[in-house]
Amino acid sequence: MSLVISVEKTQNPKEKPDPSSLGFGQVFTDHMFVMDYTEGKGWHDPKIVPYGPMEFEPSTMIFHYGQAIFEGLKAYKTKEGKVLLFRPQKNMERINISNERLCIPEIDTDFALEALKALIKLEKDWIPEAEGTSLYIRPFIIATDPFLGVRPSLTYKFIIILSPVGAYYKEGINPVKIYVESDYVRAVRGGIGYAKTPGNYACSLKSQVEANKKGYTQVLWLDGVEKKYVEEVGTMNVFFNIDNEVITPSLEGSILAGVTRDSTIELLKSWGVKVTERKITIEELYDAHAKGTLIEAFGTGTAAVISPIGELSWNDNVIKINDGKIGSLSSKIYETLTGIQYGKVEDKFGWTVEV
Amino acid sequence: MSLVISVEKTQNPKEKPDPSSLGFGQVFTDHMFVMDYTEGKGWHDPKIVPYGPMEFEPSTMIFHYGQAIFEGLKAYKTKEGKVLLFRPQKNMERINISNERLCIPEIDTDFALEALKALIKLEKDWIPEAEGTSLYIRPFIIATDPFLGVRPSLTYKFIIILSPVGAYYKEGINPVKIYVESDYVRAVRGGIGYAKTPGNYACSLKSQVEANKKGYTQVLWLDGVEKKYVEEVGTMNVFFNIDNEVITPSLEGSILAGVTRDSTIELLKSWGVKVTERKITIEELYDAHAKGTLIEAFGTGTAAVISPIGELSWNDNVIKINDGKIGSLSSKIYETLTGIQYGKVEDKFGWTVEV
Ligand SMILES: Cc1ncc(COP(=O)(O)O)c(C=O)c1O
Ligand SMILES: Cc1ncc(COP(=O)(O)O)c(C=O)c1O
Repeated sequence: MSLVISVEKTQNPKEKPDPSSLGFGQVFTDHMFVMDYTEGKGWHDPKIVPYGPMEFEPSTMIFHYGQAIFEGLKAYKTKEGKVLLFRPQKNMERINISNERLCIPEIDTDFALEALKALIKLEKDWIPEAEGTSLYIRPFIIATDPFLGVRPSLTYKFIIILSPVGAYYKEGINPVKIYVESDYVRAVRGGIGYAKTPGNYACSLKSQVEANKKGYTQVLWLDGVEKKYVEEVGTMNVFFNIDNEVITPSLEGSILAGVTRDSTIELLKSWGVKVTERKITIEELYDAHAKGTLIEAFGTGTAAVISPIGELSWNDNVIKINDGKIGSLSSKIYETLTGIQYGKVEDKFGWTVEV
Repeated sequence: MSLVISVEKTQNPKEKPDPSSLGFGQVFTDHMFVMDYTEGKGWHDPKIVPYGPMEFEPSTMIFHYGQAIFEGLKAYKTKEGKVLLFRPQKNMERINISNERLCIPEIDTDFALEALKALIKLEKDWIPEAEGTSLYIRPFIIATDPFLGVRPSLTYKFIIILSPVGAYYKEGINPVKIYVESDYVRAVRGGIGYAKTPGNYACSLKSQVEANKKGYTQVLWLDGVEKKYVEEVGTMNVFFNIDNEVITPSLEGSILAGVTRDSTIELLKSWGVKVTERKITIEELYDAHAKGTLIEAFGTGTAAVISPIGELSWNDNVIKINDGKIGSLSSKIYETLTGIQYGKVEDKFGWTVEV
């Protein structure tokens, strides 16, 4: 792509947040990337501009019909001051997978990555340095036609915003309690479950709120057809270590193909651990637990990297996994992935990309 | 509710569009209604302000997580110059049904209707008068926290915008060709299908685009579990006249409870026609067609009121219904409903509300 990214720098740089009290997704950096799409003209006018409010007609299609996609990845600062991205091409490719399902025009993934890097270079000082902190990157695309009527929009905006975020685990990794959802359904084959699109998250809220009220951190979804196959957890894919075979639900169209999921599979394989992607029922998990062979369970995702599951509750049947403690594989995957991300562990896979 | 609606009138009234070339959802009136919600404070600051662009942070939750709902209804001008709404309480109640599913705080339906009436009174001159034209009303609620993270927003905006729209049928009612979707799924029980929320429409786009390419106007959805029960069409509910019994899919949580659907059922009952709400398979329809008992099929919705179905295509099996012509019941329902809406037919049901 021969597009040139114009840069307009802010006149009012903001104060950086106190690194010790960083939360998640509340503070944004000084600049953002914005690119427009117009039918017949393609993607055009890529620019880096000061971060700030944008004007939208109340009739803008995104408010009414949800035609949009997004991504989430992070930039990490190493001890030596280098800035690393973790498999960013994967996120860019996933944008196009989501785009295709939502009838949003394809982006040039190389150019998008170039734009992302240019933005991060400019915002380098916003990347926090303390252990476990990072710069969260949110690329997203929204339909912008000022039009009421159900059809794909003819105009879009592709935006990238950045948010310095705190360490996910401030007091050591604590396994979470997960509620297995038997009533609400997040996605079904033939639907939009595999796309990273707003509708999936809107759909998940009610179940999550109800699980929280019952004292559970997150929800484990079951498939929408038979309500017996395990799908994914909130914003994480799931893995189960049964008798030293690690099993994760196969990608059947209703769950997101997580970058951390893929990396976990590769890592385990490189260690000689048996990994299987297949359909797995919630019953099988409970049976394995009863037999004492459910050794570990954990979620994988960009935010937490690895989140051990200490407890499952399914139809009032509560099981504790690994005594509610983090398992050895979970620990090892966590240490290795974060080690690679922060440049402390050799990156044999060529996963990191320096900005 | 004791809230007072403040009114700020526009300084730059727009020119009204040429009534003979009105489309749908492209032109908006001079004013809109806006009300804010803040956690702990409730809904507050209802106001009528000039229609125009609004400012949103790019981190606004609606862009990322799709927590939103909307409605669609119309205001009609009678020959005598009266302005009528058709069962607007139903739409306000449906807002709260959608809100509940999407974890959006309830609205006061009486107050919302009062606000709607106040806005329409102010915009009275924007209601077109030609046969079949009307003022389309779009209330909607969007999550407005500037925050990245999956949880219900703590702030919202409830907005009502108005758009003068042309007659749906400019050259007489033409039955449509419908593609029965066997691959993509719109909704599943346990999901959000019954709510009027952006995600459902985003999800439907790809199937609709593909059906259009094959020469079909709309898609008939099948249930997400067994892919055999008939659900609804695009933005319409569906009815089938089989052997003089009118059958429409029952409300099982995956389709919208249409106001036109409900009115059609009431109307048919008042005429002594047998109406049944139940699950109906696509196979049953094809069997009835083969036996010659599938007399009529039609969709119901606010936009078209009644849309006769002239052709169905299911797995390459194409059937013609009623010779591709509008059936007698469809005609009668259309004439009666539009008659009531425009004040030409006596409203025995108390459906219309004068503004
Ligand atoms: C629904 C869902 N599943 C899984 C994941 C994990 O994906 P990743 O490892 O790419 O962050 C995410 C987060 O992006 C998600 O939103
Ligand atoms: C999905 C869906 N089904 C059915 C309908 C018909 O509903 P109503 O008759 O209330 O317009 C609509 C339109 O609002 C819709 O969007």
